[in-house]
Amino acid sequence: MAYKIGILGATGAVGQELIRLLHERNFPISELRLLASARSAGKTQTYQDKSWTIQEATPDSFDGLDACIFSAGASQSKAFAEEAAKRGCIVIDNSSAFRMDEGVPLVVPEINPDAAFEHKGIIANPNCSTIITLMGLYPLHQAFGLKSVIASTYQAVSGSGTGGIVELEQQTRAWAEGGEMKKEVYPHQIAFNLLPHVDVFFDDGYTKEEMKMLNEGRKIMSLPELKVTCTCVRVPVFRAHCISVSAEFERPVSIEAAREAVAGFEGSELVDDPANAKYPMPLDYSEVVNCGVGRIRKDQVFENGLALWVTGDQVWKGAALNAIQIAELLHDKGKLKG
Amino acid sequence: MAYKIGILGATGAVGQELIRLLHERNFPISELRLLASARSAGKTQTYQDKSWTIQEATPDSFDGLDACIFSAGASQSKAFAEEAAKRGCIVIDNSSAFRMDEGVPLVVPEINPDAAFEHKGIIANPNCSTIITLMGLYPLHQAFGLKSVIASTYQAVSGSGTGGIVELEQQTRAWAEGGEMKKEVYPHQIAFNLLPHVDVFFDDGYTKEEMKMLNEGRKIMSLPELKVTCTCVRVPVFRAHCISVSAEFERPVSIEAAREAVAGFEGSELVDDPANAKYPMPLDYSEVVNCGVGRIRKDQVFENGLALWVTGDQVWKGAALNAIQIAELLHDKGKLKG
Repeated sequence: MAYKIGILGATGAVGQELIRLLHERNFPISELRLLASARSAGKTQTYQDKSWTIQEATPDSFDGLDACIFSAGASQSKAFAEEAAKRGCIVIDNSSAFRMDEGVPLVVPEINPDAAFEHKGIIANPNCSTIITLMGLYPLHQAFGLKSVIASTYQAVSGSGTGGIVELEQQTRAWAEGGEMKKEVYPHQIAFNLLPHVDVFFDDGYTKEEMKMLNEGRKIMSLPELKVTCTCVRVPVFRAHCISVSAEFERPVSIEAAREAVAGFEGSELVDDPANAKYPMPLDYSEVVNCGVGRIRKDQVFENGLALWVTGDQVWKGAALNAIQIAELLHDKGKLKG
Repeated sequence: MAYKIGILGATGAVGQELIRLLHERNFPISELRLLASARSAGKTQTYQDKSWTIQEATPDSFDGLDACIFSAGASQSKAFAEEAAKRGCIVIDNSSAFRMDEGVPLVVPEINPDAAFEHKGIIANPNCSTIITLMGLYPLHQAFGLKSVIASTYQAVSGSGTGGIVELEQQTRAWAEGGEMKKEVYPHQIAFNLLPHVDVFFDDGYTKEEMKMLNEGRKIMSLPELKVTCTCVRVPVFRAHCISVSAEFERPVSIEAAREAVAGFEGSELVDDPANAKYPMPLDYSEVVNCGVGRIRKDQVFENGLALWVTGDQVWKGAALNAIQIAELLHDKGKLKG
């Protein structure tokens, strides 16, 4: 059994990692259809020793595909997802376009795999910070029952795509070599700086990114009453996101049980030996499949509370890897027709 | 009226800024006595067009001084503070050595100026992250009555002294130029990385730095019941600290009243116009007297809660400036004998 798989947004930061991970994880593919904007059409991409030509995405591009991973932004998703689904191609969508739509499952395979099978042609891949935070929180929810979350993020520039990575590189080189820093992606310098600003602002002072943690967290964990306050901050780190979390639970917590829950949760690993300076860091979780969880301790504000620190690769578990894991889940359960 | 002022730790990152700020703020000085370790003795330092020779600190170094600002670490403070006080020299101590001692005032002049006058020879200067956080929180406490705080810090390398600054510079240049990164100050690479590790760890998983926010916050604001959970993180930024705060209050909050309280608080300024990408950032608050407060919004977990983002220069308001402001306070109120 091998599948005809498409990638929309094949030339972007996530698109490139999708191609790499499909190869590294030996996803069974008979045809790889690489779709992008007209600008990239005609370029070629090597995949498993074959050369594949990038095509401009049109509604007909999805004909005959078994599944297509969309990673070209919300407007492209809105333009093409329903067209693709209509043609029998399952869409796994990295954008925020459909995440909160009823009837569109929002899936982290380690957390709510069964939701994936309820799709009507589109499955949404959650926000990167949300996925990584939940990889630390969900095992604790299973152990103690999650009530509320206060999270502050430390988000890498990879979250802004290739442009963000290039901007941090360019600005840092300009600092080292005495050149001029260019600002194209961010409204302010990101090198040696922090921007408490990810995605657009709403009138109530929250950003769209901050509200994703609340809304997507509720949907993924089926916790409609969950309370979340989130502050999202862009930091001069290339690739892995970190999140500092204080969480309140229904039931009394213990550090030992919390550590056991995290250590036993597929996709996360416990890195929590502060006496030996061992805790998860972005450099150790770049191009790594699992998320790292550490600094687990009793929260001092919430009665049944824990504080923790979670790290994960924004491009992998926060985007490309989670999307592929959704496809793998469909394949494993015979829910992908080849 | 002019004073005989000493600086212990004159050659360090904070010591150098103390000398600069005493000059820029025209503190009335008749003698500047620069004290350091034997290693630095004999070097000279220009201050107000005069050359001053750095002396090795001994108990007798404090004879005849009206006040001395200590910024040479806790062990040096323990060695000399009581000797200096015995000799009639008021010690303003930047280290953590005496902060929690009964009888030693812990002072942020905008918050608890009167405490300074109760000293018995030693006045402690609080922890940098604590000072900067309170510059955002205290006006809100005055308005609504503070109950609990959940804070995550984003701490610049200046908090580790000159060595931290040099290490971030060296590692970043090595990245740009292809050289080898040296690790002397931090246990892990700090360039393009994050370390959830500031100061030493206790058995309960908290760091000493994290507990300062709780213990010093309680003492400075006279709030013995205050609850604080803090997570301290070192980030690749040179000089200003940032803190993401969720705070719970006794009384109902309003955004307008919160903004007014911050805007009217001496030493802080409101930078809160997210629609125009205006919020406090470390680059805008390096070598700046005031702290910046922004991203003020309703907290979504606490019933009477606010979320906010505070920034301030770690070397200035977090250390040297606050110490000088304590000396200025004593001078203004006639409590410093010349």
